[in-house]
Amino acid sequence: MALIVQKFGGTSVGTPERIKAVAERIKRHVDKGDQIVVVVSAMSGETSRLLTLSQSITAQPDARELDVLLSTGEQVTIALLSMALHDLSLGARSYTGGQVKLLTDSVFSKARIKQIDKKAILADLTNDQVVVIAGFQGVDGSGNITTLGRGGSDTTAVAIAAAINADECQIYTDVDGVYTTDPRVVSCAQRLDRITFEEMLEMASLGSKVLQIRAVEFAGKYQVPLRVLSSFKEGPGTLISIDENADMEAALVSGIAFNRDEARIIVRGVPDMPGVAYKVIGPVSDANIEVDVIVQNVAADGSTDITFTVHRNELDKAHAIAEKTVKELSAREVAVDGNICKVSLVGVGMRSHAGIASQMFKVLADAGINIELITTSEIKISVVIEEKYMELAVRALHTEFGLDQPESE
Amino acid sequence: MALIVQKFGGTSVGTPERIKAVAERIKRHVDKGDQIVVVVSAMSGETSRLLTLSQSITAQPDARELDVLLSTGEQVTIALLSMALHDLSLGARSYTGGQVKLLTDSVFSKARIKQIDKKAILADLTNDQVVVIAGFQGVDGSGNITTLGRGGSDTTAVAIAAAINADECQIYTDVDGVYTTDPRVVSCAQRLDRITFEEMLEMASLGSKVLQIRAVEFAGKYQVPLRVLSSFKEGPGTLISIDENADMEAALVSGIAFNRDEARIIVRGVPDMPGVAYKVIGPVSDANIEVDVIVQNVAADGSTDITFTVHRNELDKAHAIAEKTVKELSAREVAVDGNICKVSLVGVGMRSHAGIASQMFKVLADAGINIELITTSEIKISVVIEEKYMELAVRALHTEFGLDQPESE
Repeated sequence: MALIVQKFGGTSVGTPERIKAVAERIKRHVDKGDQIVVVVSAMSGETSRLLTLSQSITAQPDARELDVLLSTGEQVTIALLSMALHDLSLGARSYTGGQVKLLTDSVFSKARIKQIDKKAILADLTNDQVVVIAGFQGVDGSGNITTLGRGGSDTTAVAIAAAINADECQIYTDVDGVYTTDPRVVSCAQRLDRITFEEMLEMASLGSKVLQIRAVEFAGKYQVPLRVLSSFKEGPGTLISIDENADMEAALVSGIAFNRDEARIIVRGVPDMPGVAYKVIGPVSDANIEVDVIVQNVAADGSTDITFTVHRNELDKAHAIAEKTVKELSAREVAVDGNICKVSLVGVGMRSHAGIASQMFKVLADAGINIELITTSEIKISVVIEEKYMELAVRALHTEFGLDQPESE
Repeated sequence: MALIVQKFGGTSVGTPERIKAVAERIKRHVDKGDQIVVVVSAMSGETSRLLTLSQSITAQPDARELDVLLSTGEQVTIALLSMALHDLSLGARSYTGGQVKLLTDSVFSKARIKQIDKKAILADLTNDQVVVIAGFQGVDGSGNITTLGRGGSDTTAVAIAAAINADECQIYTDVDGVYTTDPRVVSCAQRLDRITFEEMLEMASLGSKVLQIRAVEFAGKYQVPLRVLSSFKEGPGTLISIDENADMEAALVSGIAFNRDEARIIVRGVPDMPGVAYKVIGPVSDANIEVDVIVQNVAADGSTDITFTVHRNELDKAHAIAEKTVKELSAREVAVDGNICKVSLVGVGMRSHAGIASQMFKVLADAGINIELITTSEIKISVVIEEKYMELAVRALHTEFGLDQPESE
């Protein structure tokens, strides 16, 4: 018997038939003796339908009222799923964010969770009820409805799992786990049985968009074991947890993440003095452009080059800002490249093993791929290369670091 | 300057364009200096869409969860209308039933209002906000979402008007007021400027379905002046209020109501002793069949005839019950007629004027219409006649009692 929080996203509850299938899946857990809290998203398509409605009223909907509108999406799902559970003769009770007293700050459309009242949830579980909770929503201290922003339902699930001290928080999605890399790029990519929170954070932020980064951070902070599973087929999925397992040491590299759509900007010949990095990057951030990699090198002449990458869509905007900065700082020039990508090795095992970086660079050199930028962290090594070499690099690294699936006999 | 509660039904808020038109109408009141609380229904079609969803989950949805589901309909409308008001530069705040603390009992799908917390509403009004409240819904003492059942939004509006002591509760609908009778039957029917609560109750229950009877009862009990108006064209509508106006004495008859689809059952030769009416009617009510008219006459032989009417759809069911009762009571026989209708004169003025009844019977006799049943109350006289004579009877009475619209010059 275990206490489990299960989260089903929009695709998993996209039709009445799928909602009934979710109910069946929950019943199998209940029949095993598990206590289940379910967190659901709006049915797929519902949020866009509501946004279209609001857009036909006004181009700039009031933030408070938009949250009132959008929160109906999950409310529909909790009612329908509870009905489906009743239809299978299970006890079930639905809760909106307000009813479960999921308290947030008052930042509409991207509220942050402050507190959850677990009393009602625990009382229902004791009474053999499946508790069905609307994801993505809460209330602020004055009772205003708030929403948590992108990926909010994952965060709701983790927060509730932390509050009730659940044994596991299971995130059902349309993939069956976290892979060593994108199977569309490397067909022999393997599903990972386990991965650490830190590794998952690096994977998520680098493009393996299985879980929202915020939910992973939250789970890591409260040490809630998180499992990614498929809604549509049975399987163990991938368990994301703290690094407590000795056999995880065996794997040096857990996965290979990559990110297309990056663009690189180099500001060359910046006078090397305190504060220049801020003067270059500050105006870009102020324009709400997300900056990814940042690298600074000091040149022999005492000047410095500052290189950073942004999303390709924002290259022109960032370029214009950088040109202004060059004039203000009397730097030499700006050079941009819109055809780059980033490839990263991720693995907790790297921490205690030297030589991974040089092994990586050798593989790329053997494949004739020029490295334009390198950044490293404790559990990640990223290189920026020409975009056209991306697949080649990912495949070569996947093989080199022993991630290819063994041939089936 | 007045404090007004305005209620807009599903048709009035059926599309984004109509919601914007409602916002414009509210703005005109605000510009005049009125304080406005708005109560809205779900957009027309939305409730059926939600019911269809629940039906595709289960034929017998759980009552608590059905209310969670259906209450999203009004929540969508309050958000959209508030956005539209903001777009006209008006302050506006939306409230669900739970947020406005509209406390009900726990009878899901037909909850009764117990209490309303007016604090937030009055505070918002003081801050020049239009308060936008979801009709039809509330919460019980444990925070469960409830709905008020049919016509619930009208009831919400009246209850809020009573709680905040509003000057008037305006119900916007697709007709421009209450008429002397149905204009589809009598083309020269007139819109009434005023009518009393009692008259409106008699009109409503007899088939002039402009307002839900429950809302009228509520308004009468708390003496909330109620006005029926058109959402689509300007006009004074009909004011429903207490009978305080001297010039109302002038009108003997305010309107003529009628009801098709009735069926009559006569149980003849019932031994005349205490309790027989209950023995005849009780089993019919127990079968959840609504009984309308009940008449009992004592015959010369000491036995009695008990006659009652039911909706035509329920005739067979009621007939079978009556046959059983006849055996049990050793009564003589049952006679049924499925082709009758009821026509009623309604008017507070009748109270102080004798002779209205006989005038009514003479008109019908002159038209060659046979009366099968008569019942009377203080402000109403109803006759049951053959259905085919209904239009003829209504038109003749409408003319006789001076209700025809004056010819326009």
